[in-house]
Amino acid sequence: MTTRTNTIDTVAIVGGTHGNEFSGIYLLRKWQQTPSLVSRDTFQTETVFANPKAFEANKRYLDCDMNRQFSLEDLANNDLANYEQSRAKALNAQLGPKGDAKTDFIIDLHNTTSNMGPSLILLQSDAFNRQMGAYVKMKMPDAVVVLEDQVTVEEHYFLSSISEQGVIVEIGPQPQSVIRQDILDWMDEMTAHILDFVDLHNQGRLPELPASYEAFKYHETLKLPEDENGERIGMVHRNVQDADFKPLKSGDPIFTLFDGTEVSWEGDYEAYPHFINEAAYYDNNLAMSLAKKVTVEV
Amino acid sequence: MTTRTNTIDTVAIVGGTHGNEFSGIYLLRKWQQTPSLVSRDTFQTETVFANPKAFEANKRYLDCDMNRQFSLEDLANNDLANYEQSRAKALNAQLGPKGDAKTDFIIDLHNTTSNMGPSLILLQSDAFNRQMGAYVKMKMPDAVVVLEDQVTVEEHYFLSSISEQGVIVEIGPQPQSVIRQDILDWMDEMTAHILDFVDLHNQGRLPELPASYEAFKYHETLKLPEDENGERIGMVHRNVQDADFKPLKSGDPIFTLFDGTEVSWEGDYEAYPHFINEAAYYDNNLAMSLAKKVTVEV
Repeated sequence: MTTRTNTIDTVAIVGGTHGNEFSGIYLLRKWQQTPSLVSRDTFQTETVFANPKAFEANKRYLDCDMNRQFSLEDLANNDLANYEQSRAKALNAQLGPKGDAKTDFIIDLHNTTSNMGPSLILLQSDAFNRQMGAYVKMKMPDAVVVLEDQVTVEEHYFLSSISEQGVIVEIGPQPQSVIRQDILDWMDEMTAHILDFVDLHNQGRLPELPASYEAFKYHETLKLPEDENGERIGMVHRNVQDADFKPLKSGDPIFTLFDGTEVSWEGDYEAYPHFINEAAYYDNNLAMSLAKKVTVEV
Repeated sequence: MTTRTNTIDTVAIVGGTHGNEFSGIYLLRKWQQTPSLVSRDTFQTETVFANPKAFEANKRYLDCDMNRQFSLEDLANNDLANYEQSRAKALNAQLGPKGDAKTDFIIDLHNTTSNMGPSLILLQSDAFNRQMGAYVKMKMPDAVVVLEDQVTVEEHYFLSSISEQGVIVEIGPQPQSVIRQDILDWMDEMTAHILDFVDLHNQGRLPELPASYEAFKYHETLKLPEDENGERIGMVHRNVQDADFKPLKSGDPIFTLFDGTEVSWEGDYEAYPHFINEAAYYDNNLAMSLAKKVTVEV
């Protein structure tokens, strides 16, 4: 088989899609100074600083969230012309165009204020992605694999959906606008394992991988408690804070209202919260994502 | 003795001096809904939202750091007219004027991204402050007392220097623009103990306090590593990250450069870092403050 997805010829590593997530931005500088760190024999590597203006402003974005601007519809809509919408079109021209992209694989580097550890977010669950998750977990036992394959890659609006294959490296906890060495080192290591995986995949020299592994499949997003005017009236319960990827059962406390009232989660499944109390999600009054635990067969 | 500092008739609790430090802002809302939580028999309590525009913008400040605008010289300089400088003059008129303030005591509520726990920052070490530190530590064993009495209150440029007595409640770690319940609860509790202390002090009914306690006296501030162009070339060493108020000895690693080089601290005293890797300090490329451990005699 020599279909296009089976050989990765061009890889883009993208940092600073959000301007106050510093790990990727500082790693890009390091890799631009020493390109051999991210080059491999079987593909070309490009590094891309996605939102330099937001970094200058020390903000997540200037006008709107860059990592929500890559639906085919929005990329084709020339009326969407603010900074991030324009920059998205420029990146699509540089790396894509989405649907027929010159870049085969995009690694988009992110930080979260949530206690998610070193997380690898896969946007689809084909053999390539299932193997990549297995390889990264084998090399990096702390790694967590999150599946956001509820829609097709083309239907995703993330930057890393420009190319036929793309992942999000999501490392936390790190406050916005801070560089923590532990988080930087995790991102550096996970990126290296992903590049190694692609190189071995291209060479048909993947090592023996585990037959299956545990992952977390996105299910739904919960809002913070609001009153009838949409004003926030509560916060994440202290038992749930920092408990990313720990099971949440029906009846467990999930929110505390500012008046002291505890609110329980009344779900009909065992949920695995993540992106718990992520700072950036306050814009939309989101509290956390919930996943279901799944077994990925390699 | 009935000197003015010996009776506190008016207390102001200030939140949102920095717009992305959320604990104080949300506690103000709660206390404004239920004023009895912060009222005591022997004084009047006022709650003040210091920088509402910065909160709306979800930033620390719009133009400059509000909590550096309260030197007597700057308050008297009418050419200093940006938003925070103007707001500082308005707050000085409302609560002060500094040097002859109608408010006897200010509690200014802050968060830090650093792992400082519930910290009480005292701006002077007179009997009132020494006793307050003892009382708060007795009621709240996790509390840490920090002394920033290297200059007189009048020479301080902090908001809480408007009044003859003032403290800063500094609780972390909390990312900017996030509400953590554990941090909120600590701030709520520490503020209540401070109010109780003032009330007991006014009544001459303070309980028996410990004869002495441990505190951390500010000594110096360290910058992040920079190259000759002032560009940041390194970060806080992973051993020091989160190790606020843990001793740092000469020769201990303190920074890691982005090229991997480790940098040691070469000091001639046993230092106690705090405000380690505080997000807001990146504006000035500051890495941390260093204190010396001292014993406060009550």
